[in-house]
Order: sequence, then C-alpha cells, then structure tokens
Amino acid sequence: MKNPFFKKKTNIKINDVLVLLNQKKLKVNYPVNDIKELESANENDITFFNSIKYVESVKKTKSKMVITHKKFVNSIPKKKIVITVENVLLAVSFITSLFYPGSVNDSPDFELNKIEKKNYKKLIFGKNILIGKNVKIGKNCSIGHNTIIEKNVRIGNNCNIGNNVVIKNSIIGNNTNILDGAVLGKKGFGFFPGKNLNTRYPHIGAVIIGSNVEIGCNNTIDRGSLSNTMIGDGTFLDNQVHVAHNVKIGKNCIITAQVGFAGSTSVGNRVLIGGQAGISGHLIIGDNVHIGGGSGVIKNIPSNTKVMGYPARNIRNFLKDNKFND
Amino acid sequence: MKNPFFKKKTNIKINDVLVLLNQKKLKVNYPVNDIKELESANENDITFFNSIKYVESVKKTKSKMVITHKKFVNSIPKKKIVITVENVLLAVSFITSLFYPGSVNDSPDFELNKIEKKNYKKLIFGKNILIGKNVKIGKNCSIGHNTIIEKNVRIGNNCNIGNNVVIKNSIIGNNTNILDGAVLGKKGFGFFPGKNLNTRYPHIGAVIIGSNVEIGCNNTIDRGSLSNTMIGDGTFLDNQVHVAHNVKIGKNCIITAQVGFAGSTSVGNRVLIGGQAGISGHLIIGDNVHIGGGSGVIKNIPSNTKVMGYPARNIRNFLKDNKFND
Amino acid sequence: MKNPFFKKKTNIKINDVLVLLNQKKLKVNYPVNDIKELESANENDITFFNSIKYVESVKKTKSKMVITHKKFVNSIPKKKIVITVENVLLAVSFITSLFYPGSVNDSPDFELNKIEKKNYKKLIFGKNILIGKNVKIGKNCSIGHNTIIEKNVRIGNNCNIGNNVVIKNSIIGNNTNILDGAVLGKKGFGFFPGKNLNTRYPHIGAVIIGSNVEIGCNNTIDRGSLSNTMIGDGTFLDNQVHVAHNVKIGKNCIITAQVGFAGSTSVGNRVLIGGQAGISGHLIIGDNVHIGGGSGVIKNIPSNTKVMGYPARNIRNFLKDNKFND
Repeated sequence: MKNPFFKKKTNIKINDVLVLLNQKKLKVNYPVNDIKELESANENDITFFNSIKYVESVKKTKSKMVITHKKFVNSIPKKKIVITVENVLLAVSFITSLFYPGSVNDSPDFELNKIEKKNYKKLIFGKNILIGKNVKIGKNCSIGHNTIIEKNVRIGNNCNIGNNVVIKNSIIGNNTNILDGAVLGKKGFGFFPGKNLNTRYPHIGAVIIGSNVEIGCNNTIDRGSLSNTMIGDGTFLDNQVHVAHNVKIGKNCIITAQVGFAGSTSVGNRVLIGGQAGISGHLIIGDNVHIGGGSGVIKNIPSNTKVMGYPARNIRNFLKDNKFND
Repeated sequence: MKNPFFKKKTNIKINDVLVLLNQKKLKVNYPVNDIKELESANENDITFFNSIKYVESVKKTKSKMVITHKKFVNSIPKKKIVITVENVLLAVSFITSLFYPGSVNDSPDFELNKIEKKNYKKLIFGKNILIGKNVKIGKNCSIGHNTIIEKNVRIGNNCNIGNNVVIKNSIIGNNTNILDGAVLGKKGFGFFPGKNLNTRYPHIGAVIIGSNVEIGCNNTIDRGSLSNTMIGDGTFLDNQVHVAHNVKIGKNCIITAQVGFAGSTSVGNRVLIGGQAGISGHLIIGDNVHIGGGSGVIKNIPSNTKVMGYPARNIRNFLKDNKFND
Repeated sequence: MKNPFFKKKTNIKINDVLVLLNQKKLKVNYPVNDIKELESANENDITFFNSIKYVESVKKTKSKMVITHKKFVNSIPKKKIVITVENVLLAVSFITSLFYPGSVNDSPDFELNKIEKKNYKKLIFGKNILIGKNVKIGKNCSIGHNTIIEKNVRIGNNCNIGNNVVIKNSIIGNNTNILDGAVLGKKGFGFFPGKNLNTRYPHIGAVIIGSNVEIGCNNTIDRGSLSNTMIGDGTFLDNQVHVAHNVKIGKNCIITAQVGFAGSTSVGNRVLIGGQAGISGHLIIGDNVHIGGGSGVIKNIPSNTKVMGYPARNIRNFLKDNKFND
C-alpha cells in the first residue's frame, strides 16, 4: 500500500546528500530516488546499516548506497557505495528531512472542514466533526462527535469511529472500530537529544490498521519513522494502550488495557497480552505467544510460548518461583 | 436501581432460545423472562453455570433454567431444567443478544442536541455540550466544554462534569466529580475470538457511580456485561485509571493514578491502591486492603491486609525479601 | 515567576488563623501575609513542619510561625511562634483555603470565548477553540482544534498546542509542544479521607513548563498544592505520562510512554526513564540517572546511577540476578 501522506522531493541528487553529510572527499555519480530500510530499499534508494544484528539484511539489500559507521564497513558487500558517518541515525534523519521536508512538522491539519454528507455513502455522523482534504471513507461507516480526521486519511467500509478521536496519517481497513479519545498517527517519540534543543527524527511512516480491528478508548498509536506502524486483521486493543512508532502487531491478537509497546517491536499472530504488560523496543515476539499481565518483556519470545514476569520468562517457572503463601 | 439503557424484547419464548442453541432434542414449555447471573436470577430467568467456583450459587439460584457444560451437570440441583452446550459463555452471549438486540452495537448516540438551560435546575454549563434524549441532571451541577452525555444517563445533585467527557449508559449519584477526558460506559472488552471476525459479547450492564465520588482525568470505565460496573460512595480515582466491565469497587477507596482493574473483580470498602498497580480479573479484594504501587495482584486478598509485589504478597515480607543496598 | 492563578485574600489576621485552628489558649499578635513551605516562607508567612526529614529546613526557615505536631516541637528553633495541632496537613489545608478561597473549587472556566485573531501575533489556529480571559500567547504559535485554554494561562513564542488539549493554571515557555488530548493544570490528587466526604486539599500551585519541551498525547500533569509542578527546559514526555502535584522534573530529561510520577518527587537533569516506570512520591532522583522500563522506584536515586527493577536497584545487578534462560 502506498503511503499518501508525505510528499517526496523528486529532484534530489546524490551530491545534495553528500554535501548534507559533509562528505567532501567522496565523489559519486549515481541517481538517488529515496531513503529506505535495508529490506525495502531498491537499487536507487539510499539505505543504512547501524547494527550487526542486521548483517544478513545488508548482504541482501538491493540498495547500492549504504550509510554506516566505520566499524561496520567490513560487513558490507564490496560492490556498494559506502558512506561512513559518526552518527548513522542522525545522518538518516537529515536525509529523510531532505527528501520529505514536511515530515518533521507535526502541527494539526489547519485546513479541515465540516463534514459533507454528499461526499460519503451511507455515512452516519455526529456533531462538530472536522474532515481534511482528500479523506476517503467507505460505505456504512459512522463517525462520533467532535472527531477530527486529517487530510488523506483512508477508512474502509463498515467502520465505526467514536467521539473525540484524532486520526492523521492513517489507513484503516473494513469493519474496524476506533473508540472514543484514541489518537492515531502522530509522529513517534524519536529524536536526538541536544544540549538545548532536541532534534526531531522525521516520521514518514503511516499507521496501517487492518480489517475487523478494534482500537480502544484513549489509545495512542504513533506513526512510523521510515517504515509503517501496523496492526493486523482481527486484532483487538483494549483501553489506554500505547503503540510506539514502527511497531508491527500481527493478526487476531488480543491486547488488554494499559499495555505499552516500545518502538520497532514486531508481534506475531494470535498473541495474547495481559493488562499493563510492557514490551521493549526492537524485539520479535512470535506467533501464539501469551504474555501475562504486568510482564516486562526485554528479549525476543519464540512462537507458541507463554511468558510472565519482569523480566518475562517461562510462565510456569515464574509462577512456581513466585508462589508465596503470605 | 433499574437499568434504563437496554430495552428488553418481551415476546421471547423458551423455544426461541432452544432453536438459537440448536437444542433439537430438548422439549420444554416454560415462560422465560430474561437472562441473568445465578444470584440475581428469578424463577423465569435463564441463568448459567460455568465454573465450579460458583457451585454454592447454583444451589441457591431461583432460576429454573440453567445453561451449562456437560461436565458440570452433576453439580446442578435435580429440579432444574438443564441445557448443556459446548461453550457456555457463547450461548449466554447469543441469548443476551436475543433479549437485548441493542446491546451489541456500541456506536455513539447520534440523536444528541445542544443543551437547553430550561430543562435543568441551576445548571452551569460550557460550550459545545451535547446531550441525549431523556438525560436527567440534578440541581446545582456544572458541565464542562465539549462534553457528551448520551441518552437516558442520570446524574444527581451538585455534580461537576469536566471538559471533553463522554458519558453513556451510566447512573451517577450526588456530589460526584467526573474530570476532563474521562470515558464512562462504553462496552467492555469481552468477545469470542474468531478466525476472521471476533464475536462481541453483549454488554447490557450500566456504570453505576455513587455519591461523593471523583473519577480522574482520562479514566476509562467500561459498563458491565450482565451485571453492572459499580463505584461506591466516597471513592476517589486519580488520573488514567482503567476499570473494566463488571468490576465492583466499594466505598471510600483511594485509587491512585494509572491503576488498572481487569473484568469482574470485586474490591471492598476503604481499599487503598498505589499508582500503576494492576488487579487481575474475577478476584475478590476485601475491606481495608492496602495494595502497594506497581503491584500485580493475581489472587484474592483478605480484608485488613497490606500487600505489594508482582505477584502481590504480604508487604512486609516483600520489602524484607527485596531490600537491596545497590 | 509569580503565579497569576489564585487570588490571595489580603486582610487575614493571625487571630483568624488561630480561631480556625481552635487555638483558644494561644495569644499572639503578629502580622501574617501568606502560607508557604519552609524554604520559601518569609518572616510574615506561616509555615509548617511535619516530618523529621525536613529538620534542616526548619532550622533555616525565615518564617516566625510554624505549625507542627507536639512530637516535633523540640526540633523547632526556640524563637519561633509554634502552633501545635493534631493533623498538620489538615491545618495547612484550612489556612490555605482561608488565604485562597478560590483554590478548592476546580470547575472548568465557564467564561471562555472563541479565539480572536487580532489578539495574538502570527497565530495559526483551528476550529472550536475556547480561550479564557487574560490568556497570553506569544508569537508564531499554533493551536489545534477543540482545544481549551483557561483564564490567565501564559504561553511563550513558537509553541504548538495540539487538538483536544485542556490547559489551566499553567505557564509555558518558548518552542514547546503540547500534544493532542493532554490535560494540564487540574488540581492534584490530594485530600483527607473522611467518613462520608473526603476533604480536598487546596491546590494553589501552577504547572510551570520550560522551553523546548514536549508533552505527549493524553498526558495528565496536575498543578501543585503549595509549590508548583515544574518541567524543565528541553525535557520530552512521551504519550500517556502522568505527573502528579508538586513534581519537579529537571532539564533535558527523556520520559518514555506510560511513566507515572507520584506527588512531590523531584527529578534532576538529563534523566532517562523507560516506559511504564513508576516513581513513588517525595523522592529525590539525581542528575543523569537512567531508570529502566517498568521499574518501580521507591527510594532516592543518587546522580549518575542506572537502576532497574521493582523495587529499583543497580541495573547490572538486577539483570544479573534475573537472568533466566526459560
């Protein structure tokens, strides 16, 4: 699915990138198209390699231009154009802002208007709703009072959006419910701390929500930085859940109230997570995993496993080792 | 207190129920009135027995018709009409939807109107307020800006409702404050996971809030499924608290910020709960219990007990066993 | 910075205070000006001493009149006028209400109006915004839809306020962002439990937010009781963070999602707190402290320390002692 939210500048040259990164010695002439992660990059997309964890991906990437730190240079295939920098993510942030100048600012959409019945099929809607330009809403939907849907958002058929909801930079499937007070699609909590001013990491990813999904009251679901934040078909989130940028949650998961996911974590299908559990960032949680309420997950969890605890471990062993009669 | 929110169909016959549950062999002729839990059911109400934990209640229930699984049949008094099914809760869900067809849909009330001063006594109110049909508000109340109060909601005297609040399916006592951004009375997070589509458990219960209560900012308090969600007189909830369906909280409790209650748990009077503690579902917490901040309560807690930890246990022992000097 | 939110009665005499506290025997004639904490009180301000923890402060206070319990009398310098009471905080609460009668009621500001472009310089703003009297907003700010800014609030230059935000009793610096659904400046969760009715602790403090700060979506930041709640320059808070009354957070801190701070805790500069961590009340967290996600901090943490766990302790030791392979 193409992300309709951030407009790419099309006249960027490799030299603009090199100047931005202060690469005076490097002379390259190669057409550049975009900046992407290792897996999704094509030949003309710049990519980056920032952790030995992704060594297999850097070997397979189609990209010809890899930004990295000098300590990782030897892990990169020889035919690539390698650009070494001190701070890889900061360089990626600069390049992303160069391609997508609109991705750093995250102000509300100020070109909203009252909803017009004639633009939508069989839409039931409340009072004081504000809708941005080019919003697409499918058949048989309902939208609650005071809700804000910003420009370019797409909503499928038979969806119910609650009251006081804010939706931006999001694509939503069919038969999906978004409950009162949820905020979808703001930029993630990613930045480079500075002495006086923190530098915002640009967020060009969207929030992609599948079909038959429910997003609970007062949830906050941030959009992705370079990739999208995704919630799969049939997954239900209870109230007050937080989903950080780039998180991917699979299909038919059940996420209970007050659970939090840190950035870039990936969760499989049919995963069950008890209330108030927290999942650290950059983890991989397999399919059919059960995570007990209150757990703190700080390592990958293989499929078909039940865990609990802080840190989370095998649930049986956790309960056995923590069986108190007092 | 009678729940004014869900209209019961009055022409249901026992045969409609049997057809719905695919009970071809069973021939019964008995007038049916409603579906209720074991304790509250009367002679003509259908009830259900789904856990050996409730064996005492099934012995005492006034109901003549009990839905159960075949493994529980022997625990049911002989004079009852017993209907055995594979999935008891799913059967209950079907019957509830049969009696209360409006209890599954949870869209916002789309028949709201601007508030009219003449309908209420000494009411102070803000801008952009939306009020449903047949809402009752007592004397000397105030209602903040952008707040939504759906049809049939009842609010007592001297109550202050904040800004951006959503109240549905709720009955509120006197001198009670509901603070900004709270969402009261949406359906609970109960459903039957399906391969493609989850089946919603119908929620015909209300949220019943006592007098002299405070509900903090951005709280979420879900309504009950068959019984009500209740918060007793004099109880104060801090910000960002989540109360799931069917939870009963007693009188004069102090619930600090970010606490979460899972479904059907019952909490006594004068209970003190520290910030971010979580209470699992279907538990009984006694009177005068203190639960330390951050605790994860996974078993019943007797009255007059102080607990802390994850899982929660005697607070002294927890602190003694976790006394680190590093 | 002077707090513009609560108007002090200026004609209070010492005798009014003595009558209020039922001090029939004590005869004093001394001009009284205000009620303040030990450190900030001047000669004519009444102060109070309620914990041996503050014995150094009581020795240094400029105040001549100290309210205390009889068990602390011997720790108070001899030249002070000492007023002994059974419940010190309750007495302070009564006196605060006497000086600041408007500090107990916390209803929404009902004198809000639509925003007027001409009153502000280069302000971009959305729909349905409500603004109180005497609100000051700097240059180049933006304000999202449905946002409520109550009377006397001050906002600096280049600030972005999101949608559905509520701001009361707050002073905000320059270049600061307040994201969607945040609630700033309501009274803190402080009260004296009563048999029938809890007695509210008056809150005359403000929320003071520095420059270059970000306050995440659906955050709740309560104002202080006698002192202010403060968030220092360059500090970023992620979504669903709760900051209780009187909390002071230093500069350049990073506070991840769903973190909670209990009342009166003080946090240094450049502190990093992982998601869902909770910090108990009345603690001192030093500079450059790292607190791991999910931690429960229940004691002071010295500067330059990394902690994790529940209760939180040295992070290395916590991880070593909790290294499970299951």
